[in-house]
Amino acid sequence: MDTMKVERLTVNFKTLEEFKQFKHYGNQELSMLEDLESNMVENNILSPFFGIYFGSALVGRMSLYKVDKQYDHYFDPPQQYLELWKLEVLPDYRGNGYGTRLVDFAKSFNLPIKTSPLINSQGFWEKMGFEKANYDMQRDLGTNPLVWTPDGVHQKPTKPNIPQNIQLTETTIEQKQEG
Amino acid sequence: MDTMKVERLTVNFKTLEEFKQFKHYGNQELSMLEDLESNMVENNILSPFFGIYFGSALVGRMSLYKVDKQYDHYFDPPQQYLELWKLEVLPDYRGNGYGTRLVDFAKSFNLPIKTSPLINSQGFWEKMGFEKANYDMQRDLGTNPLVWTPDGVHQKPTKPNIPQNIQLTETTIEQKQEG
Repeated sequence: MDTMKVERLTVNFKTLEEFKQFKHYGNQELSMLEDLESNMVENNILSPFFGIYFGSALVGRMSLYKVDKQYDHYFDPPQQYLELWKLEVLPDYRGNGYGTRLVDFAKSFNLPIKTSPLINSQGFWEKMGFEKANYDMQRDLGTNPLVWTPDGVHQKPTKPNIPQNIQLTETTIEQKQEG
Repeated sequence: MDTMKVERLTVNFKTLEEFKQFKHYGNQELSMLEDLESNMVENNILSPFFGIYFGSALVGRMSLYKVDKQYDHYFDPPQQYLELWKLEVLPDYRGNGYGTRLVDFAKSFNLPIKTSPLINSQGFWEKMGFEKANYDMQRDLGTNPLVWTPDGVHQKPTKPNIPQNIQLTETTIEQKQEG
C-alpha cells in the first residue's frame, strides 16, 4: 500500500480523456476541456484533482478545494476547511485501499473536511471517521454532507432551523401562487 | 393530465413514511423526523416539499426553496430564485407526465430556477427548457447545476475562473503538504 502515490493532477488533454472513465464526469471536466481548447488556460495548469496511478493508468481521483474561513458554515468557530468531492475509484480497482489512501491524503492537511457523497457510500465514510453534518436546509438543500474534524474541532451547533426557514420563505411562495 | 394536482406537503409521520420509498431519502427527511419526534416542530408544519398523489399514494415529489437576492450567484442582475431539488417520481409511475407537471408548477412562480440533478436526467431537463449553468468551481464544486430563466432573465456571465481560483488556493495546499 505504501507504493500508492497520490499525485496532483494537471489539466491536459490526456488527463481529461482519462477522466471520461469516471462516472462523475460532468460540468467541471467539460469546463476544463473548453478552457484548454480555447487557450483560456495553459496546458498542464494545476487542477483541483488528485489521483493515483496504477502503472500508467489513472485508477482513482478526488477533488480538493480549500474554503476560506469567511465562507465556513460547518465548523465552530468558523475556520478554513477542505471541500472534498468526486472521490472515485474505477470499478476494477476497488477494494484495494485506493479510496482510503486518497482520503488519508486529504486528512494529512489537518484541516476539517466536508464532503457530500452519494448515499450508498455511507459505510465507507463512517469507516474513515466522517460523521453526518447537522442538517440545515438553507445551507444543505438536497445534499447529505459529512464532515471529518481533526482533534479539537467541532461542528457548528444545531439550531431548530426548520420552522423559521420554511414558514418565512415557503408561505411567500404559496401566496404568490394563489394570487 | 389536468387532474394531477400539485400539493404542498406537510411534515407528519405518514408523509415521512411515504418519503422512504423515494431513492433520495436522506439527511433532510431524517432531520424532519427527528424534529417531529422530539417535538421541536409541530405536526403538519409546512415542508419545502410539493407532491402529487395518485389516489392516496404519493407518487412524485420535489423540494422548492426561495433563495434571497443577496445569496444569488447564478443570475444577472442578482435576484430571487427558486432552488429545486429531489424531483423524483416513483418507478411505477414514470412516463406519465408527473415530473413535467411538478416542474411546470415550479415555473409558474415566474422566478428563475436552479437545480443540480443527477447526470442521467439531462434529457428530461433539456426538454423542460433548462440549460447548463456556466461552471464556476468555487460556487459549483462537484455539482452540475442547470438553470431555467423566465423571459428577460440571464445567467451571470462567465469569467475565466479556473486559473485564479486553483492556483491561489491549491498552491497553498501543496506547500503545506510538502512543508
